[in-house]
Amino acid sequence: MAKETQEGITVSKSKDISEWYTQVIQKAELADYSPVKGCMIIRPNSYAIWESIQEYFNSRLKDENVKNAYFPLFIPESLFKKEAEHAKGFKPEVAWVENKDEDTQERLAIRPTSETIMYDSYSKWIRSWRDLPLKINQWCNVVRWEVKTTKPFIRTREFLWQEGHCVYATEDECIKDTQVWIDEYKRLSEELLAIPVLAGRKTDSEKFAGADYTLTIEAIMPDGKSLQMGTSHNLGQGFSKSFGISFLDESSKQKTPWQNSWGVSTRLIGAVIMLHGDDKGLVLPPRIAPIKGVIVPLFFENKKSDVLKEAKKIYSLLSRSSNIILDDRENYSPGWRFSEWELKGVPIRIEIGPKDLDKNQVIIVRRDTGKKEPVKISKIEKRFSELLDEIQADMLKSAKKALKESIFEVSSYSEFKSIINKKKVAKVYFCGKASCGEKIKSETNATSRCIANESKGRCVCCGSDAKINVYFSRSY
Amino acid sequence: MAKETQEGITVSKSKDISEWYTQVIQKAELADYSPVKGCMIIRPNSYAIWESIQEYFNSRLKDENVKNAYFPLFIPESLFKKEAEHAKGFKPEVAWVENKDEDTQERLAIRPTSETIMYDSYSKWIRSWRDLPLKINQWCNVVRWEVKTTKPFIRTREFLWQEGHCVYATEDECIKDTQVWIDEYKRLSEELLAIPVLAGRKTDSEKFAGADYTLTIEAIMPDGKSLQMGTSHNLGQGFSKSFGISFLDESSKQKTPWQNSWGVSTRLIGAVIMLHGDDKGLVLPPRIAPIKGVIVPLFFENKKSDVLKEAKKIYSLLSRSSNIILDDRENYSPGWRFSEWELKGVPIRIEIGPKDLDKNQVIIVRRDTGKKEPVKISKIEKRFSELLDEIQADMLKSAKKALKESIFEVSSYSEFKSIINKKKVAKVYFCGKASCGEKIKSETNATSRCIANESKGRCVCCGSDAKINVYFSRSY
Repeated sequence: MAKETQEGITVSKSKDISEWYTQVIQKAELADYSPVKGCMIIRPNSYAIWESIQEYFNSRLKDENVKNAYFPLFIPESLFKKEAEHAKGFKPEVAWVENKDEDTQERLAIRPTSETIMYDSYSKWIRSWRDLPLKINQWCNVVRWEVKTTKPFIRTREFLWQEGHCVYATEDECIKDTQVWIDEYKRLSEELLAIPVLAGRKTDSEKFAGADYTLTIEAIMPDGKSLQMGTSHNLGQGFSKSFGISFLDESSKQKTPWQNSWGVSTRLIGAVIMLHGDDKGLVLPPRIAPIKGVIVPLFFENKKSDVLKEAKKIYSLLSRSSNIILDDRENYSPGWRFSEWELKGVPIRIEIGPKDLDKNQVIIVRRDTGKKEPVKISKIEKRFSELLDEIQADMLKSAKKALKESIFEVSSYSEFKSIINKKKVAKVYFCGKASCGEKIKSETNATSRCIANESKGRCVCCGSDAKINVYFSRSY
Repeated sequence: MAKETQEGITVSKSKDISEWYTQVIQKAELADYSPVKGCMIIRPNSYAIWESIQEYFNSRLKDENVKNAYFPLFIPESLFKKEAEHAKGFKPEVAWVENKDEDTQERLAIRPTSETIMYDSYSKWIRSWRDLPLKINQWCNVVRWEVKTTKPFIRTREFLWQEGHCVYATEDECIKDTQVWIDEYKRLSEELLAIPVLAGRKTDSEKFAGADYTLTIEAIMPDGKSLQMGTSHNLGQGFSKSFGISFLDESSKQKTPWQNSWGVSTRLIGAVIMLHGDDKGLVLPPRIAPIKGVIVPLFFENKKSDVLKEAKKIYSLLSRSSNIILDDRENYSPGWRFSEWELKGVPIRIEIGPKDLDKNQVIIVRRDTGKKEPVKISKIEKRFSELLDEIQADMLKSAKKALKESIFEVSSYSEFKSIINKKKVAKVYFCGKASCGEKIKSETNATSRCIANESKGRCVCCGSDAKINVYFSRSY
């Protein structure tokens, strides 16, 4: 009987974050391993978080006049190879289908990303300046046959994402929008997921295959590793040229348009789990928590029916505006019930027992801090709603503090190595040369995450002139 | 310049429905062919319909306490083969991946449906009666390597769908819910899509591979062919036994549970296009129309700015509750603009010219009937909203009439053949023998669509005792 033998997390997050993550994912029923190596099952408790993200982001897409569509899963090999850098970059991770296209006898790739299949259509759809900007997004699954170790949500062979693909008549619009989407991702991460991020440009060696440049947001996990949360690529005119996308401008001249693409994936769920969770399990920011609160009546011999009656009244009241659970299972102790909902990350617990009833109050407990407060029953609706906002804000605030404390500006290579070994992020001047990047990686396992700003200094690695200030850390 | 050379539908729906369908899909920018044989691109104009269906159905899922989740795209061959009938039924249409699972060296199928990958997990998750009923749905893409001719939305190698998979402690619950979902599909089809359907059980030869029985809803297209719109399968205990799903009941006895599965797909969009469209193009029921109305100001030399000003006022007013377009493009004639929005199926057109302005009125035109009515500007908000409801109701009413008129009860085989040749549906007694089904199919190309009722008569084909009254027609 699964539920009765259920237990809490048996390892401390600070001692072994990897084992802790695995336990939280399984015990909070967020995901499960599948019989297919490297693929995962997204269970209802975490899929609901993805639905929150979709709802939030669909509204942003609508505001920016981006339309949702759906393109095929399969990409003919000839299309896939059209943009040389892109094909080279993705080649090692592509899965192919045994069945061939009967007409062309071509091999078919399973999409690792959809630039090539989409831009083939764009070349047919775009004729005149009136067709621009063309802004299309799709929510879909993609497959990358990862050879690195996989980890649920963080790195799996199949994952869910959204990919936006826009075409513009002018370079200015393209540059502006490439920034708009990374700003939107930052906002999504902070406002919805309570995860602050470092945002900036990737160095050339870390950019998307086929892009002019890539903007990224990176979150720093408690183990000091950064997690790439979302990227926005300015593709310039490379794909347009390879795919023959062109348009007649207002004076009937043939022009080549500019393009960008941008995406976030179910990896965001992994970031939420890893950043906010604690030794009791999952901690969810209220805005993405599928269950906002749980009411746990405390049953004693006396006043059992009165307590239950009041709990039901409170349930009806709060259910009008939030998804609430009333856990009135008598065969489970209060402590057992507390643990279950803590494990699952429900933001607020409301306890009510005979003594509370006498005082016309309940005890409200915050999942994020564990702090308890008595609240008069007459004030509960207002307080519950306020507290959800407070928790959301406090979780972001505390994550911002942690992010700030994880970054160290250093100038010598020995300090740099020490910071990385202490599982922190180093902000350093960097010459940008491949040889320095490789030396740093081989000696510390850190890579450049994004450019903090452009300013002059001396490269932390070789001491030569550097024009950029870069965040380095280990990464997922 | 694509838009300026755009033209209307050049073939009559009643003369050549197949060519008409192809033109509507392309000219109304609903879908496009892809470079992959048998696969299609779902463009924004039709993807928005899918989103309406998802929104409607997600709310029904929530009411029935079904949770959304996501399972892997890939299914190991050994799992796929576990339920013998199922494996046999789907084998011809499965696409396989070249890459193999490195650990097991197994071939991987691309899901044609997810019973096998999901039930493998169910066997791990279900332990006790407390875990039941387990009700999970997923929205995803599936692949069936169709050898039959493909047709956008109606039959493609990849399509989008939802698949619900539930497990119950008792047979009664399973039977009841299998019916609940076919009833929900009927409601969705009628209430949302304005498409009336025939609902009933499939004969054994037409049921889902691995099911005890299949319930179906079938819409009848204008060419008399039926289109299967959704199915709900009572899987009995077959999969539970093959996958070792069992539970301890309240008295701690090991039991085998009952299961069902049910789905609808993007095929529904094809039904909407084909059933409701006319010689001018797409006609959308208001509830699923992404654009509810279009305001077309009629510009003449006099009062141009007054007309535009009033049009903008009406636009602001109606935009508060509906998604509306103001088409004030001066370089396109009114007739050209009317045609564009008719082609795209927008339910209501609002015309306003100088003469209307003098009378404080607009002319409202219904897309479904073409009927015009003058409406005072002061009443427009109310009338617009009422009219959307009227159009929705009238479209269903008229489709119901057409459905009724397409069905003929006949008893002789010669009448039967004549009805089928007239592109109608025959309601007949049928013995259910495979030999009769095959004879009918080879001589008329009609198949049994669903059982209308159980009653006694003589088989229309062989004259022997028949216990069921069945709808026969050609089908998509």
